[in-house]
Amino acid sequence: MTRSLPTACIVTSSFEVRTRGRGFVELDGRLRAALAESGLREGIAQVFTQHTSCSLLICENADPVVREDLERFFSRLVRDGDPLFRHDAEGPDDMPAHVRSILTGVSLSLPVRNGELALGTWQGVYLWEHRAAPHTRKVCITIIGSGS
Amino acid sequence: MTRSLPTACIVTSSFEVRTRGRGFVELDGRLRAALAESGLREGIAQVFTQHTSCSLLICENADPVVREDLERFFSRLVRDGDPLFRHDAEGPDDMPAHVRSILTGVSLSLPVRNGELALGTWQGVYLWEHRAAPHTRKVCITIIGSGS
Amino acid sequence: MTRSLPTACIVTSSFEVRTRGRGFVELDGRLRAALAESGLREGIAQVFTQHTSCSLLICENADPVVREDLERFFSRLVRDGDPLFRHDAEGPDDMPAHVRSILTGVSLSLPVRNGELALGTWQGVYLWEHRAAPHTRKVCITIIGSGS
Repeated sequence: MTRSLPTACIVTSSFEVRTRGRGFVELDGRLRAALAESGLREGIAQVFTQHTSCSLLICENADPVVREDLERFFSRLVRDGDPLFRHDAEGPDDMPAHVRSILTGVSLSLPVRNGELALGTWQGVYLWEHRAAPHTRKVCITIIGSGS
Repeated sequence: MTRSLPTACIVTSSFEVRTRGRGFVELDGRLRAALAESGLREGIAQVFTQHTSCSLLICENADPVVREDLERFFSRLVRDGDPLFRHDAEGPDDMPAHVRSILTGVSLSLPVRNGELALGTWQGVYLWEHRAAPHTRKVCITIIGSGS
Repeated sequence: MTRSLPTACIVTSSFEVRTRGRGFVELDGRLRAALAESGLREGIAQVFTQHTSCSLLICENADPVVREDLERFFSRLVRDGDPLFRHDAEGPDDMPAHVRSILTGVSLSLPVRNGELALGTWQGVYLWEHRAAPHTRKVCITIIGSGS
C-alpha cells in the first residue's frame, strides 16, 4: 500500500545520555517520547550523535547476550592498545573508539508510521559508548513528517 | 547547480522480500517502482529493513564476483560458529548474522533526482540475507520530495 | 527543547571531488557553502557519493594521525591483493576498495540547526578514496528543511 501525505513539517529536539563507560544505552524510550511530542505521524526520524568515539546502532533487543557478544567481537577486531595505533593521547581505548565509531556510524534514519517508530519486533536503538570512561553524549533528533 | 523546490511531500510504502538464505537480493526494480508510483521527483528515498539479521547496502552491480568476494570476506571476518559467541540459540549463523547486520546497516538514504534514484552507474541496492535459512524480510520506503 | 517548524523545502546540489588516490578529503567547507546557499535553517542535509570504491564518513578532525591510523587499520583489515578476492580486474586495490566502501558507507545524514551543520566539535565530514589512483568523485547534497 502506498500512502501519499500532504506537506512535511520538521520538528527538532535533542537530549543528553550519560554513559557508564564502554557499553550500550537503549534510546527507544527517549526517541518515542520525542516522536510523541512532535505530533508527527508519517515520515522519518533522523537521529545523530555529535561525537567520534561513540555510535548509534540498531541491535537485537531481547537477549542481552547479543550485546555482550557484539562487544567481545569488536574488542577482538579493534584491540585496545594495538601498537598499530599512534593516536593514543587519551589512552589505549582512544583510537579504537574512533575506529569502532566509524565502523558502526553516528547517524540513523528510522521510518515513522502511525505516530510510532516503525522498528521491527526485535530491533532496539542503542547508543554505544566506545570509551572506557563515562561520558556525556549529545543526541540530536530531526523528525520530518506529516501530522495527518 | 543549486535547485530550490517548493513544499516537500511524503509518500510511504513497503514490500516483502523472500530470501533463499545467505545471499543478495537486488532491490533496484522495486525501489524504482515505488518512486515512480509516488510521483515525487526531487528529494530523498529512505529505505529501511525491520530486522537484525539482514542488511541493506549499495554494492557494485556489474560483476557478480564482487558479491561472492564480499560474502567470502564477511564469512572470514565474522565466522559462523566462532566460540567467542554465546548467543547461538538459532544456530552457528545466529550471532554472526547480527554482527554482519550491524557492520553493514539496515537503513539507506538515497537521493532522488528528476523522478529517478540518483545512483551511480555501478551502484545497485541490495538486501543482504545473513541467515543460512530463507526468510521473509520487510522493507519500508519513505520518500520525501517535491513533485515539481 | 523541541522546536516545531513549518513546511519543509528541498534544495539539491552537487559537486565533484578530485582525489589524489587513497586518502581523505575534508568536505565540511563545501557542505557549509551548499547549506548557506540553500537558505534553509532547520532540518537535515543528506550527502551521497555515487560510487562503490570510495565512502563518506565522520571522523575526528583535529589530529591528522587519527586518519593515518584509520587507513592503517583498514589496510590491515582488508588487504590489497588478498588471494581471497577474485574480482581484481582493476588491480589489487579493486575489491578491497569495494569492501571498504561497504564497511564505511556512501550516504550520510547530518542535522541542520540555525543554518549550520550541527556537527560536534571534533567531527569532520570526509570523502575517503579507497582506490590507489586519483579519481573524480561526485557528491550529491539534498537539504530538507525550513527557512524560518
